[in-house]
Amino acid sequence: MRKSQAFIAGIDLGGTSVKVIVADGRNKILASNKKKTDAGSNPKTLINEIASLVERTVADAGIKALSAVSIGAPGTIDMAQGVVDEAPNLGWRNVPLAAWLKSRLKVPVVVNNDVNIGVIGEHAMGAGERVSELAGVFVGTGIGGGLIWGGELYEGSHGWAGEIGHIVLLADGPVCGCGRRGCAEALASRTAMERDVREAVKDGRKSAVTSIMRERKKDRMTSSVIQAALAQNDPVMKEVIERAEYYLGILIANIVNALDPERVVIGGGIAERLGEDFVGPIRKTAAEYFLHPQAIKRVKIVKGALGDEAGPLGAVVLARKRLRRL
Amino acid sequence: MRKSQAFIAGIDLGGTSVKVIVADGRNKILASNKKKTDAGSNPKTLINEIASLVERTVADAGIKALSAVSIGAPGTIDMAQGVVDEAPNLGWRNVPLAAWLKSRLKVPVVVNNDVNIGVIGEHAMGAGERVSELAGVFVGTGIGGGLIWGGELYEGSHGWAGEIGHIVLLADGPVCGCGRRGCAEALASRTAMERDVREAVKDGRKSAVTSIMRERKKDRMTSSVIQAALAQNDPVMKEVIERAEYYLGILIANIVNALDPERVVIGGGIAERLGEDFVGPIRKTAAEYFLHPQAIKRVKIVKGALGDEAGPLGAVVLARKRLRRL
Repeated sequence: MRKSQAFIAGIDLGGTSVKVIVADGRNKILASNKKKTDAGSNPKTLINEIASLVERTVADAGIKALSAVSIGAPGTIDMAQGVVDEAPNLGWRNVPLAAWLKSRLKVPVVVNNDVNIGVIGEHAMGAGERVSELAGVFVGTGIGGGLIWGGELYEGSHGWAGEIGHIVLLADGPVCGCGRRGCAEALASRTAMERDVREAVKDGRKSAVTSIMRERKKDRMTSSVIQAALAQNDPVMKEVIERAEYYLGILIANIVNALDPERVVIGGGIAERLGEDFVGPIRKTAAEYFLHPQAIKRVKIVKGALGDEAGPLGAVVLARKRLRRL
Repeated sequence: MRKSQAFIAGIDLGGTSVKVIVADGRNKILASNKKKTDAGSNPKTLINEIASLVERTVADAGIKALSAVSIGAPGTIDMAQGVVDEAPNLGWRNVPLAAWLKSRLKVPVVVNNDVNIGVIGEHAMGAGERVSELAGVFVGTGIGGGLIWGGELYEGSHGWAGEIGHIVLLADGPVCGCGRRGCAEALASRTAMERDVREAVKDGRKSAVTSIMRERKKDRMTSSVIQAALAQNDPVMKEVIERAEYYLGILIANIVNALDPERVVIGGGIAERLGEDFVGPIRKTAAEYFLHPQAIKRVKIVKGALGDEAGPLGAVVLARKRLRRL
């Protein structure tokens, strides 16, 4: 028998999809499922769908019962209460996520920020293993970040730290999902890139993105659409992603100049699909903005190693810390 | 007799002036002196002037000998070697500050960043007393910052943390002293404000700043000039300082959204002179950019309490930590 017999479901709830894993006591993934989320849907409906997905994943894993559920949600979270205060990408406000999931699944529920769990996952088992000072930047529907300080998640004095996607890089710039202007998320998230491509098309430019989305029946510019458009050398897509990479380079330089981490991990779907084609230009701009001449050599900027399992695995790792005995 | 008999000289070397204090074993200031620095002067000449100022302050204090000298310098510092790698506001590159001071004064010399020492001072004895997570933003010739984490100075994984003045707030914005564009320092330091006033005057606008500088025989727009121009309701000065306050508000929101400190201290000459007239508008903009709705109530933004003694006192406190037995 293993030391820990606690099976835990780890969930990454993003703006466009939710991914559930069930892991054993050694954080080995026994089963996983993923499905799309509908940003406009009723919170209770979506939470019920998530609970059903957990039940299905438990069945797939061939286990009898879970010891806990741990979920990362996008937005500002009241972690003590397990309440999502505000999640613009889901259209949620004051949603008692922990309470509703617990009433369906009858196990303890841990709630954290979706990007905190991503950086915990990469730190525990991925590209940030054994790194004491680590910054994670996750680019998807939004942009999130998480900070590991002295080997532990840095949550700040009220639990609100890590909102790296809302660092303003271009004062008075484009409107962000949070309602403010010029945040990194409004400049370099997949949502921002989609907005820029749509604007270019509206201005009369031709882009392969339009036909690719039509062919694939996508209503959003997913990472696979971006990849396909770049493969066709689409000039609009190239321009838009280069701009996003530039802003991400500045964002990372801001973090490095202020916090001097050992390593920066870039995670999320686009980094996962494009790899070095995405990370390379970001690294180049960041280096140009590093204040300390030696930072170029010493601070490593790398792609996440766990793909879309970083979040769910991080959620599992976090739950074990929170619920001590598991 | 006091527990510590170690008299220490604390020095804050800024872009326009250098301040020296001599403190006793309880960090009580026995004597202090301040003089202007000449940005263009030879590093060796300036360091000799600083050494003479230390000797004069020791004499003023009526003590026989120092146990250590501790100096904060503006720029990127190699703290282990006591070398100033680069200090754009002084025009220095690779200056062996510790070695040269030590060869004149014959005591151990501790070198740190000028803003790290400011935040250490405010944390040890000023507006950040007993605060575990504190951010300091010091607005002067440049903009510096320092971070206290868990009650200790946070220096990052290579000792380069805290370069808050070089957080880019306006990508592709005005050129900064560091050579990059859009840094907070290029938008809201006294140097940036002076540039903006001069440009307005060049564009044909009238400003009281011109005549005040002439009357007072100032070749730079010091904090006292800013205060006098505002007292005369000079529209150019008002516009320029409001813009700087706006950017400082965004800068502080960036720090709060990423790091969630308990308190933010705003130090430096302008904050010292203008007080709430300067801090109030910064606080207002910051609150508008706070992501977490409760941050407005919970994260305090206050003026530094120690004025231009924050840096020298912080240097003394730091030296006691570094040179254990003192």
